[in-house]
Amino acid sequence: MAESATYPLHPRSTIRRKHDRGAYDYLTVHSILRDAPILHISFLPSDISDDPFPTTLPMIGAVASFSNPNADPASEILDIYVHAHSASRLMKLPSSSPHATDVADDEDGSPAVPVCVCATLIDGFVLALTPFNHSCNYRSAIVHGYASVVTDEPEKNFALHRITDSVVPQRWDNTRVPPSKAEITSTSVLKIKIESASAKIHVGGPGDDRKDLKDENVTENVWTGVLPVYQVIGDAIPGENNKVQKVPEYIGTWRSQSNLEAEKYAREAALVEEKKKKR
Amino acid sequence: MAESATYPLHPRSTIRRKHDRGAYDYLTVHSILRDAPILHISFLPSDISDDPFPTTLPMIGAVASFSNPNADPASEILDIYVHAHSASRLMKLPSSSPHATDVADDEDGSPAVPVCVCATLIDGFVLALTPFNHSCNYRSAIVHGYASVVTDEPEKNFALHRITDSVVPQRWDNTRVPPSKAEITSTSVLKIKIESASAKIHVGGPGDDRKDLKDENVTENVWTGVLPVYQVIGDAIPGENNKVQKVPEYIGTWRSQSNLEAEKYAREAALVEEKKKKR
Repeated sequence: MAESATYPLHPRSTIRRKHDRGAYDYLTVHSILRDAPILHISFLPSDISDDPFPTTLPMIGAVASFSNPNADPASEILDIYVHAHSASRLMKLPSSSPHATDVADDEDGSPAVPVCVCATLIDGFVLALTPFNHSCNYRSAIVHGYASVVTDEPEKNFALHRITDSVVPQRWDNTRVPPSKAEITSTSVLKIKIESASAKIHVGGPGDDRKDLKDENVTENVWTGVLPVYQVIGDAIPGENNKVQKVPEYIGTWRSQSNLEAEKYAREAALVEEKKKKR
Repeated sequence: MAESATYPLHPRSTIRRKHDRGAYDYLTVHSILRDAPILHISFLPSDISDDPFPTTLPMIGAVASFSNPNADPASEILDIYVHAHSASRLMKLPSSSPHATDVADDEDGSPAVPVCVCATLIDGFVLALTPFNHSCNYRSAIVHGYASVVTDEPEKNFALHRITDSVVPQRWDNTRVPPSKAEITSTSVLKIKIESASAKIHVGGPGDDRKDLKDENVTENVWTGVLPVYQVIGDAIPGENNKVQKVPEYIGTWRSQSNLEAEKYAREAALVEEKKKKR
């Protein structure tokens, strides 16, 4: 496997505190974007002097490369795709925002707006002797990039296929496709070209101060450890019009594996020994 | 119980699409902020002409009122509190951002910056006959407000207590407290006064187009239904220096109840019948 490439350092994405938790490599960033169930997308207000608040919206998305569908996430450039109704605020943004620009080297010259994409997974609550040493095990990726509406139809289809399969693998091919003209028209896809990115991962058990560890009145009364946290996909509930008796294999197998892996990651994260933790 | 108050409508927070999913009442907004494990906080760049990207950071926080600790979340004003290292980027923001203002009627006149707070919970993947009718069951709250660093020590202690207990109820009182001077100094608390807010909740099973529902070749081959999704807190893993044999009751009871409730919500959300779904 090729060595992982890294995103260039930029002041906006350079991790200054606890930088030993930080990472800039493609594989870490792309994996967190892939594994987090929600992508939080933020954008600027139209007129800061009138209304100074940024806005953040939760979206479903996928990381992929249309020009290189089998791209290695460790060494090759990927874009972020999210979908929404064509009349949604997010999809109107590139054509309406005064912050739109054509700096993104977009093949078709569509306007692009600067956005931040944040993906987060909580893996555990780390309980120490004192609240001030409490912590979380987590994975987060923060990406800055230019977002434009995808106008090329093959690219739009590619993105919708990938977004659907990012929720349940193989789902697209197991539904009624291809989409009708009306379906394609009513849904838009936003493509975010990554300009800079950073990730933070925290794993490990509680780290306490020597002073607290030596105090028997404290250690004998305060339980310390980790509560692993993970997302579970529960038993499938058939819809009222469902005619397929058995939950298909591709759903069942993926669900079991996904649940096992999520629990395993959270438990193993809790058991990683952290160096230089005690003060 | 008092009737729920509602946040004022503002263009930035008015839900334009699928507005039947939208809510502006205090109870819905405050409950989602309370239940989501992460608060995503977004802020503006210092100089948009130089670097036009907003930034979003994942934080742990609580909703509470210092002046009214037993406030009814359905009818009374609550603030959002998040904590971080005093040297962190977020905590330096109010004193360093050119967007800081004193418009927030902050008692002590601290500078405040405009932020967006987004809280999201995924409750299920809704699988329909065609990808274009796929959906998610979810709860999200989007809040705009002014963030300032808490300088009043009693308020800071109150906030830290509430933030700790928002992760594991009763944890603060079951640890080594009060904090030392050094601990209090190294941690800062940001208070966000809510200016406007909206929430979106989606529940229900798949809704399909009549045309697809009449096509036996489709209905006999595509499984439709909901995969409930929920967060689980796993078996407690004791830390290497833990001296308390048994996981305390307040952790065990809360964990079981929290897991039961999360699964129950996701399953019940899947079974809610949605009106006017079929086209």
